[in-house]
Amino acid sequence: MDQPTVLAETIHRLVLLPQGLTLDCGVHLAPLEIALCSYGTLNRAADNAILVCHALTGDQYAAEPHPVTGKPGWWSRMVGSGLPIDTDRYFVLCMNVLGGCMGSTGPRSPRPGSGDGSTEPHISMPWGTDFPPITIRDMVRAQRLVIAELGIERLFAVIGGSMGGMQVLQWAATYPELVFAAVPIATAPFHSAQNIAFNEVSRQAIFADPDWQGGRYWADGRVPARGLAVARMMAHITYLSEEALTRKFGRRLRRDPYNAEAPLALFGEMFEVESYLRHQGSSFVRRFDANSYLTITRAMDYFDIAADHDGDLAVAFRNTNTRFCVISFSSDWLFPTAQSRAVARALNRAAANVSFVEIDSDKGHDAFLLDEPALDRTIRGFLAGAAEHAGLEQRPRSHAASAGQA
Amino acid sequence: MDQPTVLAETIHRLVLLPQGLTLDCGVHLAPLEIALCSYGTLNRAADNAILVCHALTGDQYAAEPHPVTGKPGWWSRMVGSGLPIDTDRYFVLCMNVLGGCMGSTGPRSPRPGSGDGSTEPHISMPWGTDFPPITIRDMVRAQRLVIAELGIERLFAVIGGSMGGMQVLQWAATYPELVFAAVPIATAPFHSAQNIAFNEVSRQAIFADPDWQGGRYWADGRVPARGLAVARMMAHITYLSEEALTRKFGRRLRRDPYNAEAPLALFGEMFEVESYLRHQGSSFVRRFDANSYLTITRAMDYFDIAADHDGDLAVAFRNTNTRFCVISFSSDWLFPTAQSRAVARALNRAAANVSFVEIDSDKGHDAFLLDEPALDRTIRGFLAGAAEHAGLEQRPRSHAASAGQA
Repeated sequence: MDQPTVLAETIHRLVLLPQGLTLDCGVHLAPLEIALCSYGTLNRAADNAILVCHALTGDQYAAEPHPVTGKPGWWSRMVGSGLPIDTDRYFVLCMNVLGGCMGSTGPRSPRPGSGDGSTEPHISMPWGTDFPPITIRDMVRAQRLVIAELGIERLFAVIGGSMGGMQVLQWAATYPELVFAAVPIATAPFHSAQNIAFNEVSRQAIFADPDWQGGRYWADGRVPARGLAVARMMAHITYLSEEALTRKFGRRLRRDPYNAEAPLALFGEMFEVESYLRHQGSSFVRRFDANSYLTITRAMDYFDIAADHDGDLAVAFRNTNTRFCVISFSSDWLFPTAQSRAVARALNRAAANVSFVEIDSDKGHDAFLLDEPALDRTIRGFLAGAAEHAGLEQRPRSHAASAGQA
Repeated sequence: MDQPTVLAETIHRLVLLPQGLTLDCGVHLAPLEIALCSYGTLNRAADNAILVCHALTGDQYAAEPHPVTGKPGWWSRMVGSGLPIDTDRYFVLCMNVLGGCMGSTGPRSPRPGSGDGSTEPHISMPWGTDFPPITIRDMVRAQRLVIAELGIERLFAVIGGSMGGMQVLQWAATYPELVFAAVPIATAPFHSAQNIAFNEVSRQAIFADPDWQGGRYWADGRVPARGLAVARMMAHITYLSEEALTRKFGRRLRRDPYNAEAPLALFGEMFEVESYLRHQGSSFVRRFDANSYLTITRAMDYFDIAADHDGDLAVAFRNTNTRFCVISFSSDWLFPTAQSRAVARALNRAAANVSFVEIDSDKGHDAFLLDEPALDRTIRGFLAGAAEHAGLEQRPRSHAASAGQA
């Protein structure tokens, strides 16, 4: 496509990729649909696009209220007019990952040719547990097809935290010529044994739910909500630091609403942290699909960039011209700073342009989603510097003033 | 009792306490039974007794094969002839905690007066979820009644790791005049918000199991094995360090025995750490009761010695003559060194006799159960020094040569 589509804020779009994709597992998945949101305006040179990659339980609603929960977008404090990822200057794209459950092709999508054998052969059943295993590389390849479809040849930047950061690293390794700048945050070049272990417990919690029904839980309208809630609760602990939990909840007690009749001394109270976790679990299951949780955690577990490059992470980034800003948080024990440092060192060995920042924070892994001014400053400053090097127009919005809403 | 019972190795005993105990929650529980094992010989002065306290999922089988699993006792590398807790010298006692499931009164015990209304009114139903909440202090008070019953007026030492360490601290706080030496290992003076959070996820995993049945799972012979296994799997991760998991398993894959038909690329493999965790989960449920798991985790959550003493841990140990050896492990993130240091500092402020050792180990919280020579040396040396101060006889065994097996 020679002339990029004119895109202006805010777009919700379902991009159809009829050609599909041959996955790492060998299965050809076609057609594909990828759901996205975009913010800001693509300039005429189509060189101001930033791809924001979401984490395990995130989605494309980065900077606007979530359609299910009504809560602000997961990065609405980072993406917007005048914010560090400034939609006055950049065209910001966020896509639901392949395998997700907010519109992109995933386990909840109808399986082609899966008629239920009834008199209505056009009715398809969801993929469910038969959905093929997805890798982080598959997610990135699907994103690559989408940006080509939108007429974007090259991304100014790819940014994301946690599993989003894995996608950033994979973008830089697979399509170095398409990524001017990369910001992997609170992430790792592979999933550690401990990370895998926590994911496995999540999966077993889902399997233990009576409503799991072997993954075919759509049949009777019940979903494995309790198992998925347990998975979420456990994961949530790993996203926070011990300090953050202590500061937020300590050992404070509250009346147990689930046990209001009991005498106080007999289980009539609960710790506030328990109440908080239960709420996290129960609100999560309203917006997330258990089979997607299995698919995406598995993709994270299999992520290991060095293994794809003779065991040497530096080889993955050899001859790269991408500018990197690697960011970690001091209290993140799920993706500890040592992992980000390993990325930075490999990039150094590949003679890449890299800056590495460990941000002093007591908020744990989730710090990238929270009010952390040092993160804001780091991202804003790095993007401004990279934009200067890239020779980006200063105010693309004025050039696109005539662009209508898509 | 003026004359102590002569006790010689090895004894399994169920001590009946007809008078029972008024628990912290206000319920009077009577009669009580406490199951114990002992090793070595109580000397005539009855001053060589060491109480070993077990952790959450431990039991009284400290130094002999477990009757259910056949595996060596959980501290068989520490307790025995010539070992750091030397049964040639000391009389070593280990009791299943109140609320446990290996013989001591707990949720699996028959509830007095709970006939099922059938024609056989003498049949009692288990307590189940109606078992009253237990505190660490309740556990210790029950142990106190048992040692009095055995004719032991004073313990030479109380030793334990994790929840066992909580009991050690509670013994020293509640009965300072009865404890000559105390060795709290890998423990804390209170359960942190993060500790409580992990326990709460364990409990929710049990509740999510269809076989939980509101806790009355004995009726149809099915037990909430999947939920309990998930709880155990998650807890097990917290017992190990990231380094230990990486060293033991890394990212190695193996054929998935649960999915032997699948092509390798399609979920036909699993990570070794997953296989290990599943095994940990499934073997645990053979020997543990879900209601006991709930009761004991709750006891740990409520543990907070300072809260019982005007919020000041030093007050808990005021005027103590007990000699303390506080031990932590550098890679223990569940009960981090900072918690042990807080204990040591409080003891310092109480002008207690205390040594504090952080052992450099990469084995995580479970290091106290594993091959850690520095721990062996520390315990052996501390006990020898304390025995000297206590004026213990050198070889009590010879004095008791005539003692028969109980």
